[in-house]
Amino acid sequence: MNETVPRPTLEAVAARAGVSRATVSRVVNGYDGVREPLAERVRQAVEELGYVPNQAARSLVTKRHDAVAVIVAEPETRVFADPFFARQLRGISKELTAHDNQLVLLLTEGREDHARVGRYLAGGHVDGALVISLHIDDPLPGLIQRAGVPTVFGGRPDFDGRVVYVDSDNRGGARDAVRHLLALGRSRVAHITGALDQTSAVDRLDGFRDVMPDADPRLVVEGDFTSAGGERAMRELLDRRPDLDAVFAGNDLMAAGALRALRERGRRVPDDVAVVGFDDMLPIAEQTEPPLTTVRQDIEGMGRLMARLLLRDLDRTGVPDEAAGGGPAGVVLPTTLIHRASA
Amino acid sequence: MNETVPRPTLEAVAARAGVSRATVSRVVNGYDGVREPLAERVRQAVEELGYVPNQAARSLVTKRHDAVAVIVAEPETRVFADPFFARQLRGISKELTAHDNQLVLLLTEGREDHARVGRYLAGGHVDGALVISLHIDDPLPGLIQRAGVPTVFGGRPDFDGRVVYVDSDNRGGARDAVRHLLALGRSRVAHITGALDQTSAVDRLDGFRDVMPDADPRLVVEGDFTSAGGERAMRELLDRRPDLDAVFAGNDLMAAGALRALRERGRRVPDDVAVVGFDDMLPIAEQTEPPLTTVRQDIEGMGRLMARLLLRDLDRTGVPDEAAGGGPAGVVLPTTLIHRASA
Repeated sequence: MNETVPRPTLEAVAARAGVSRATVSRVVNGYDGVREPLAERVRQAVEELGYVPNQAARSLVTKRHDAVAVIVAEPETRVFADPFFARQLRGISKELTAHDNQLVLLLTEGREDHARVGRYLAGGHVDGALVISLHIDDPLPGLIQRAGVPTVFGGRPDFDGRVVYVDSDNRGGARDAVRHLLALGRSRVAHITGALDQTSAVDRLDGFRDVMPDADPRLVVEGDFTSAGGERAMRELLDRRPDLDAVFAGNDLMAAGALRALRERGRRVPDDVAVVGFDDMLPIAEQTEPPLTTVRQDIEGMGRLMARLLLRDLDRTGVPDEAAGGGPAGVVLPTTLIHRASA
Repeated sequence: MNETVPRPTLEAVAARAGVSRATVSRVVNGYDGVREPLAERVRQAVEELGYVPNQAARSLVTKRHDAVAVIVAEPETRVFADPFFARQLRGISKELTAHDNQLVLLLTEGREDHARVGRYLAGGHVDGALVISLHIDDPLPGLIQRAGVPTVFGGRPDFDGRVVYVDSDNRGGARDAVRHLLALGRSRVAHITGALDQTSAVDRLDGFRDVMPDADPRLVVEGDFTSAGGERAMRELLDRRPDLDAVFAGNDLMAAGALRALRERGRRVPDDVAVVGFDDMLPIAEQTEPPLTTVRQDIEGMGRLMARLLLRDLDRTGVPDEAAGGGPAGVVLPTTLIHRASA
């Protein structure tokens, strides 16, 4: 862009459309509340004049930084070790970039650093926040609320209140997995749970119990969503119930670990023990031996949707006659059972 | 901390030490310029009274956000795909956390988003920036300079100017690798370079040429620091010079790809072709078949040092009688050849 050529002003757009500056400003900044024929006239004038809103001026009007914080409530080592986060961040990054918003990833060494994250959020450096992988009793949501930053959660929070979140149908997906194992004729179905201080793990366990209400408690072992944790849990299950004939693992990483433990103990998959995972984390789910039957959730799509809901919220903020949503608002995305060789 | 108990004030510390408020402030905020016996008296008073500087007040005095931006000049997909970045970020994160500074990772989809990163930096949301994996001709350094944000680079920048950077001895490390191959009696040594729009790749190529000034140009193929790129480059080398007996790959990921291509073509490693990598990226370097002989660089240590240099610079800023460093300042860390089975 050549900065010496004067750019069309907001006033020029207002004159052309025959409306007030305020109306142009509202339309240009994406606020609701301007009636359609008027808004359309403004958009037409913007296009005809080639009007580009001045970034700084826009920021003064909207008090926007065009930046969104993302907080993964895990130590940074786990953020880089578990491909779930890279994939969810991919969806978030695509959506924020499409709206020219900067993705500001706030990394920490652990929960003890969350107070500092709260201070950064309260410092007015971002317009909103996306929070992923929240654990039960984490002080973060309270800190964010005090910081007054609009927030969308990835995964259902464990507390009540007016929160917006995006989740997968963890309970329904788990039911599908277990029903599939029963339909294969298996009867001694075990479950390796995720970390039970996360609602996704709790919901998947609930789904397992929906279908297997009378399951032997020894058939359920808590894992931690890691491959090593899945391996450990599988060994424990085999010690407790050597006669088990199927396992539903709370994610694909744990399923991959379980496959290693089964191979080590000489069990054939799926002949002796059928295995179902959760996520459809590629390429892992296709590269295990044998490839994993699993419950697909749209991890990248969840990320995109979280970002979209937040940006929509930000556009509405400050418009007094707009009822800015009410009550907790969860968007729950469906899951799909993917058949491969392991079950 | 119990907030109802009055905390010792700056004034109390000043009175105890027998110095002015300003002197206490300078010492507490890490400025230079207070002579040692005086500074020591202040530190003693701080300790005796259990004085804790008030975060907000400190921020007013120092204009600090206690936040540091990290920019990896790669699309976010590569940030998560190449373990080099996770490891360098680990070092940075540890050091920043130890100084209660927030790590603000600015992710992008690619170079076209760097203007937005520049705007965020100019917005005054961070005290400084760390830039990793810069490519030649990236507009980022210019944008950062205009934003006026103190910066430390990871890797030698390709431009002149007063820049602070941390690097490994890429050229010396490469020389060690190639000399090792010659010492094994190999004479037709090939080189798979990294992306040659990065100084690390250029410097390693220079090291190769230092030792092999008369090498057949067909023995050098450009890779891209990825495993797939290393595999492609190795196939091309074998097509060009089927008689080659050694390869120095510009990093371990490319060496792992080269090993796959060599296996595919029926070449035994190291019997037919000896292979040396660069990085000592664990666990990859130990898990290849055979395990990799490689040039170790301290990637996490580089990250820690970058953060430390930046924080030191920030402590000095604003102190007028302090000559804030002069000229380009590069800290170059040594490398070590690690012997395993591949060469």
